[in-house]
Amino acid sequence: MSSVDRPIGVFDSGIGGLTVLKHLARLMPNERFVYLGDTARVPYGNRSPETVKTYAMECAAFLARHDVKMIVVACNTVSAIALPLLSETFNSTDSEFHIPIIGVIEPAARNAVERSRTGRIGVIGTRATIASDAYGAALRKHAATKELSIHGRACPLFVPLVEEGWIDTTATRLIAEEYLRPLVSQEIDTLVLGCTHYPVLSAMLADMLPDVALIDCGACTAEEAVAAVAAVAAVAAEEVTLHQPKLDLYVTDHTPSFATLARQFLGMPVDDPVLVTLDPVRERIA
Amino acid sequence: MSSVDRPIGVFDSGIGGLTVLKHLARLMPNERFVYLGDTARVPYGNRSPETVKTYAMECAAFLARHDVKMIVVACNTVSAIALPLLSETFNSTDSEFHIPIIGVIEPAARNAVERSRTGRIGVIGTRATIASDAYGAALRKHAATKELSIHGRACPLFVPLVEEGWIDTTATRLIAEEYLRPLVSQEIDTLVLGCTHYPVLSAMLADMLPDVALIDCGACTAEEAVAAVAAVAAVAAEEVTLHQPKLDLYVTDHTPSFATLARQFLGMPVDDPVLVTLDPVRERIA
Repeated sequence: MSSVDRPIGVFDSGIGGLTVLKHLARLMPNERFVYLGDTARVPYGNRSPETVKTYAMECAAFLARHDVKMIVVACNTVSAIALPLLSETFNSTDSEFHIPIIGVIEPAARNAVERSRTGRIGVIGTRATIASDAYGAALRKHAATKELSIHGRACPLFVPLVEEGWIDTTATRLIAEEYLRPLVSQEIDTLVLGCTHYPVLSAMLADMLPDVALIDCGACTAEEAVAAVAAVAAVAAEEVTLHQPKLDLYVTDHTPSFATLARQFLGMPVDDPVLVTLDPVRERIA
Repeated sequence: MSSVDRPIGVFDSGIGGLTVLKHLARLMPNERFVYLGDTARVPYGNRSPETVKTYAMECAAFLARHDVKMIVVACNTVSAIALPLLSETFNSTDSEFHIPIIGVIEPAARNAVERSRTGRIGVIGTRATIASDAYGAALRKHAATKELSIHGRACPLFVPLVEEGWIDTTATRLIAEEYLRPLVSQEIDTLVLGCTHYPVLSAMLADMLPDVALIDCGACTAEEAVAAVAAVAAVAAEEVTLHQPKLDLYVTDHTPSFATLARQFLGMPVDDPVLVTLDPVRERIA
């Protein structure tokens, strides 16, 4: 199959990455997508870097076997921890594969630097993402000579609150206030939503932080993906645009809340996903 | 090794089962324990029954290879969904193993029936535990002719709240009030804490429900385990009691919060756990 006809692969620890796929499908309505959610092992955000790398390799290998022309890592935790390993394995001259790999952190960091006037930038994400300082490194790289003051904060309860539908309740606001207090006291003017679940909380966060620009990594990443597909001359031929993305959806577990959450995250109903088992990468990856 | 000298195996999806091990070690200070926490795939509570069974089989097989004389399933979700499969595999005449297997649901249900005066019993647990109605079946079995009115409620945010240390905050109380409201309106006099994490919330729940008896599955299960070990004449010889249980601790991921939570759940500090990889049961179990 020529590059033009091959699908774009997207994966996440679960279905949070559908908030990224939403933007990918919006900007590239002619492309086909293969999405993998590792719902049997979600969440990755509190796991060790070694385990995140092992799981990420298994997900990317699954997509590579589906002959994708590009992989979008629609998960901040994986992007923060495993992107170099994934690129080395699936997109280096030594590799049997030559699949460009895009994460969500670089695009979001570039956008945050462009948007911030004061250089005081907050980043919220999972424990693993914040501990990695991947956003710090990416923000500093894009800042060049601009001076930055970067403030990270892990918000581990946001994912279960979103998955349970506690989107804008008093309890969720109290938890958000506790998480955001140190960022507010640092007078940030820009906040990176460094987890694919967090855009679901955008309205509440915007209400709580009216003077802060919120950066949605999904929207930024989709723009970068468009450029990357064009760069390798692999843009799908134009055809009548469908109202629903051409999407093959795979999961590692049929979880009860899938259909409800998928519709919420993607902004439209989805077909039932196909259940798959990932081949293990048995060596632990340091 | 004779039965007397073999250790007792205990497993859980993560480290919540240490609240059960605490009671086992208290009642059986001469026994050795092997504990496995599947921290690379925790939590099980929102997963499908098929995936819970697959993971439970892998955990039990690991303990069987460690030559345990009994397995305590220190996880309500696994006890609710996979106990018949585990017993059939590891303790039937057809099996290569003859390892008695005890879950947490039967002992807690028996205790709840004994404690309740009105027969109006509430059960809280994970989505998977409540959806299985395993507590309903066990309660009805033990009730015999006593009339019961059983009210189950999934409380999926309690596990992340406990793991994040939000033990008695305003937000946690608001969430608990929302979860418990239908049980309170049903005028329950007994509440089964049907998840090994929930005893950490006991003080708050007792304060919110002053007239309701709280049933801790760990304490009930430990009593049943004592009887089961005696029944197979496998009680360890008495020796000078140590202040710390003789415990080999295995996990599938070195998660950052392990030491803090383990101390809280077990009520004492623990040694660093040994990292292991479980052998996959590749066929999905229906």
